[in-house]
Amino acid sequence: MRSPEFMRNGEGTMSPNPRNRGFPTNFQSTVSVQKLRRFNSLILIFRLVTFCFSLASTVFMAMNSHIPNGDAAGEWVSWTNYDAFRYVVAGNAIICLYSLVQMGATIWEILKGTTILPETIQVWFDFSHDQAFAYLLFCANSAGTVMAQALRSGSAWVGQEHSCNEVNAFCIQSAVSISLGFGGAVFLAASTLLSGFKVACWIINGSRFHL
Amino acid sequence: MRSPEFMRNGEGTMSPNPRNRGFPTNFQSTVSVQKLRRFNSLILIFRLVTFCFSLASTVFMAMNSHIPNGDAAGEWVSWTNYDAFRYVVAGNAIICLYSLVQMGATIWEILKGTTILPETIQVWFDFSHDQAFAYLLFCANSAGTVMAQALRSGSAWVGQEHSCNEVNAFCIQSAVSISLGFGGAVFLAASTLLSGFKVACWIINGSRFHL
Repeated sequence: MRSPEFMRNGEGTMSPNPRNRGFPTNFQSTVSVQKLRRFNSLILIFRLVTFCFSLASTVFMAMNSHIPNGDAAGEWVSWTNYDAFRYVVAGNAIICLYSLVQMGATIWEILKGTTILPETIQVWFDFSHDQAFAYLLFCANSAGTVMAQALRSGSAWVGQEHSCNEVNAFCIQSAVSISLGFGGAVFLAASTLLSGFKVACWIINGSRFHL
Repeated sequence: MRSPEFMRNGEGTMSPNPRNRGFPTNFQSTVSVQKLRRFNSLILIFRLVTFCFSLASTVFMAMNSHIPNGDAAGEWVSWTNYDAFRYVVAGNAIICLYSLVQMGATIWEILKGTTILPETIQVWFDFSHDQAFAYLLFCANSAGTVMAQALRSGSAWVGQEHSCNEVNAFCIQSAVSISLGFGGAVFLAASTLLSGFKVACWIINGSRFHL
């Protein structure tokens, strides 16, 4: 039978002898460690993809300022004039930073076999942030979609009246940024499933992973 | 030690003797059944609250048609003119219906001790739908928020130009409906945590609940 302490930050799975450091002491532990490593590698891939999507989305939207066609002396049409687009940039930038930090933490866990924070805090921290940020990102991109659609339909222009025919690049770049943001949200939602599974394992077995 | 079959739709927990039907055969089973019943009661409460919020939100938005002040012969300002508000109604109506069905299924499970669908399908069905619909509802209400804000700022009126001063009731009613929708989304997210835990229990222990 498994002890509830089994695999808590490597206790009981690693030899206390410093010369054997990092080497599991029995077959069951080896399988567990390998499974946990594979699980963490999958999380790492999801976090990397989320990072790429949200970084691209942030950059696309943050560089989205254009001069309307045939209006060389005119005012720039910029994402900063629209609350919803500011929300898209903020949401994606937060996720970008969060994914970067989490990638670091996951790589640490894969290499060292222990979590940076105490394990209980780590599993709850990961899951709660993943879940909350996934909702945040879906909300932000959804808000951006409505604004992009309102601009395309001709209403909702701030300050000066334009149409997407005059500032086509602005409308297209917004749409691309929002689509990339939704891509990031989907992969963050996938990470949520995995970190949620870790929390459940922790509650049920008292370890980060079940054998 | 628990068998993986333990508590699968009551197998092994109920006596095969028809006279003992519904009565657990040993102490461990009694505790498990009671725990599962309490867990399901909590889910039922969350679903009921979600249902109330989303029903209220749907009704508030669906009845949101007003004549602008001092414009007795004018056109009605209605939620049907706005894509985002239609999305709010659709999203909340779906959740309302879904919560009703799930309440029925949960009451069945509490009373009969078995799930309506085969247990594997049931736990995955519950969790996947909870998760997807929670994202849907957050997105819908977030979209509605942007539209409500755009109307308040004076842009984005469809057909005729108004302001929230002229059609104050329309703007307020939209805001109330969206707030109620967010309330429903939060409780749906809470249900997701519980149904997600059931899935994890299923994967790890092969039963709907752990002792």
